[in-house]
Amino acid sequence: MGFRGTNYHGFQRQPNGITVQEVVETALSQLFNEPVTIQGCSRTDTGVHAKEYCFTMQTEKQLPERNFIRGACGYLPEDISIYRVEEMPPEFHARFSCKAKEYMYRIHNSESKNPFTTDLELLYRRKMDIPLMQEAAQHFVGTHDFATFCTNYTEKQNTIRTIHDITIEKQGNTVILLVKGNGFLYNMVRILVGTLLSVNEGRIAVSELDDLLASKNRVLAGITAQAHGLYLNRVFYE
Amino acid sequence: MGFRGTNYHGFQRQPNGITVQEVVETALSQLFNEPVTIQGCSRTDTGVHAKEYCFTMQTEKQLPERNFIRGACGYLPEDISIYRVEEMPPEFHARFSCKAKEYMYRIHNSESKNPFTTDLELLYRRKMDIPLMQEAAQHFVGTHDFATFCTNYTEKQNTIRTIHDITIEKQGNTVILLVKGNGFLYNMVRILVGTLLSVNEGRIAVSELDDLLASKNRVLAGITAQAHGLYLNRVFYE
Repeated sequence: MGFRGTNYHGFQRQPNGITVQEVVETALSQLFNEPVTIQGCSRTDTGVHAKEYCFTMQTEKQLPERNFIRGACGYLPEDISIYRVEEMPPEFHARFSCKAKEYMYRIHNSESKNPFTTDLELLYRRKMDIPLMQEAAQHFVGTHDFATFCTNYTEKQNTIRTIHDITIEKQGNTVILLVKGNGFLYNMVRILVGTLLSVNEGRIAVSELDDLLASKNRVLAGITAQAHGLYLNRVFYE
Repeated sequence: MGFRGTNYHGFQRQPNGITVQEVVETALSQLFNEPVTIQGCSRTDTGVHAKEYCFTMQTEKQLPERNFIRGACGYLPEDISIYRVEEMPPEFHARFSCKAKEYMYRIHNSESKNPFTTDLELLYRRKMDIPLMQEAAQHFVGTHDFATFCTNYTEKQNTIRTIHDITIEKQGNTVILLVKGNGFLYNMVRILVGTLLSVNEGRIAVSELDDLLASKNRVLAGITAQAHGLYLNRVFYE
């Protein structure tokens, strides 16, 4: 599944706003003519998009992939689409079987906004030093305690995560950051992006980053970069 | 300038709906604090986008490019953006000085819709035979009477145009058609695209295309492909 998160309060069903889960469950309940509950691979924040989002549902009914996709398309709104359907063994769980995730953050780096990607890329006008940002990003690769990079961190929480890889690439006016890891804390990618932009602006030095990680002090890191540049890009299973 | 045409009744100011021209004139009048009228390079249909649209305005006031762009950005809505500003000699005219234009038509060729390009690409589910469509497209290259490919054609009108080049390329699930010519009739690109899709579907044979051009009979051509896949992509001046 892919979705444009602009109009949703994230994936996870909640009482205070419309969510992707709720809309997909309603559509699939109509398609299957029975109540459908889905299990998603990840929570997502309000306004965050997904290029590749995996969920499971259970049913006794048989529906060929093509009919599932076409049928769901008829019930789903324009900003949610199902790309692929597969039958899985009962022990498969969209969230717990997931071994790694890749997030993408997209920045439109230009004096002028891009009218085609207003809700899809962060507009950032300053000059970007990509090699500097790449150098900074390497300090986050590996297994670290990412408490500094977590909104609402509490000491009870396990905040150790492994980042496998971060790449930053410029394609025309678009800067694409990819970060792959075994799991992510609340707002972690967005705070990492905000911190890399602080490095770009000279407000945090690359030499300070290891101390920043050790500090467990959210306020020392960069801002939480806006949600609309962020995408759950891929989910990896065994 | 670039604009996402979804919310506009085309570029050209008109009484029946909001247009890009009207919105840009209002924004620039605020920025310059004087009434601003602009001259566009081309009409565009409702829902059609522009990647590169050129217009002129006259003013005695001096405003550096960067301030123009930033200032206009503050007054313009999110779906219109000014990329570049240049001072031109008085004889330059956005429309009459234009030597050629390139249109782009984007097709999302997949069973599933793309939630990120709903208003930006035509969803087309059938298999596409790109080499066949390329072969068909070559029949339109050159100087022809395109009356067959014009909505509201009247015999008084000069319907001879030159198409310099048509290319059709597949990039992943996206098929991109580029057509460059010295000028285009009303709906011409959209009818050409509709006709190429008819060829793809076997409803018009490549061998019939020369007769189709000669017929001057709109109803024999394919449908007018939907507006939301079409972009004014480039405008060429001497």
